[in-house]
Amino acid sequence: MKHYPSSVQTLIKNFSKFPGIGTKTAERFAMHILKSPVKEAYELSESIIALKKQVRLCSKCFALSDYNICEICADVNRNNSQICIVETPADMAAIEKSRSFFGVYHILQGALSPIDGINPEFLRIKEFLSRISTDNVKEIIIATSTNFEGEATAAYLIKILKKYKLKLTRIATGIPMGGDLKYIDKETIKCSMETRHDIRF
Amino acid sequence: MKHYPSSVQTLIKNFSKFPGIGTKTAERFAMHILKSPVKEAYELSESIIALKKQVRLCSKCFALSDYNICEICADVNRNNSQICIVETPADMAAIEKSRSFFGVYHILQGALSPIDGINPEFLRIKEFLSRISTDNVKEIIIATSTNFEGEATAAYLIKILKKYKLKLTRIATGIPMGGDLKYIDKETIKCSMETRHDIRF
Repeated sequence: MKHYPSSVQTLIKNFSKFPGIGTKTAERFAMHILKSPVKEAYELSESIIALKKQVRLCSKCFALSDYNICEICADVNRNNSQICIVETPADMAAIEKSRSFFGVYHILQGALSPIDGINPEFLRIKEFLSRISTDNVKEIIIATSTNFEGEATAAYLIKILKKYKLKLTRIATGIPMGGDLKYIDKETIKCSMETRHDIRF
Repeated sequence: MKHYPSSVQTLIKNFSKFPGIGTKTAERFAMHILKSPVKEAYELSESIIALKKQVRLCSKCFALSDYNICEICADVNRNNSQICIVETPADMAAIEKSRSFFGVYHILQGALSPIDGINPEFLRIKEFLSRISTDNVKEIIIATSTNFEGEATAAYLIKILKKYKLKLTRIATGIPMGGDLKYIDKETIKCSMETRHDIRF
């Protein structure tokens, strides 16, 4: 890296901070920017600043938003009585891409992880409980991840939500589409067996 | 992607233009910037502009440089009589990292590729020939890549350089360090056999 001019070195160092990006890839990125038109570099630079300046969290569901209330919460066509709880905005985007849910979301902004010091008070759980009290909620879908932290968060949510006497569901754990049964771990198979559903004709 | 606010979408689109980066990774980058301190985002944004503003090509060897003459060309401890010809600044950096060469470089800024319209006049060959005439050059090391374009460039350079009656060398093609002979392609083995060298005791 020190075989590049200092301005190149600085950019490589900054790109190396990206998740999963080592010095080699950071070098490629810097070379890409060197080669790309000046206009494109300025656009990139400005879009980084714009992101930091414009993006805030929706005051209702804590999704990323350019406005005080996000597009989904503001959309009258979404079913407000179904709230899907997810960990992060990226999880919400993944569900939206699947076009399988037409309710609204609540983004916890993380998952429980006592080892990292992430306790319930760090997540947007209190705000969620006040949403249940004020909004006309009928179903809560817990869509945290199925890893250790996600399952711990789901268990915690179930514990505090069961007293509300609402329909409480959890997204299914099972064999992914295109999955080859012989390569699937036994915990997943166990789950998919236990939560098997009737076949509709 | 359209499930993010527009400022996030714009940044994702800009990151997607990076080499080898798809929408998923671009999304991760944007989330990383959202999470990182404002100061870091500004540093990144500024370093992109700084790169485009400051970096130019060394007027002698066409390496990347913050100045008119690059650090290597300006270094009196480097051996000016040995010039190593490489395709790109990244190739130069790779050789510098190996600490195996103490002469100077000439960066062609590409390799011959008639199919992409890259003919000799697009490379810094004319400038190299004028360096030979003025500088006191004793050896030219051709260190273009060993792929199709690199070999074509090497062949072209050999053709036009042989009349100068200088020592002309080519970096060795052979089994990479740590390589397992049974997995090495036959062309590489053939090259490494043909260019085998005496063992020094």
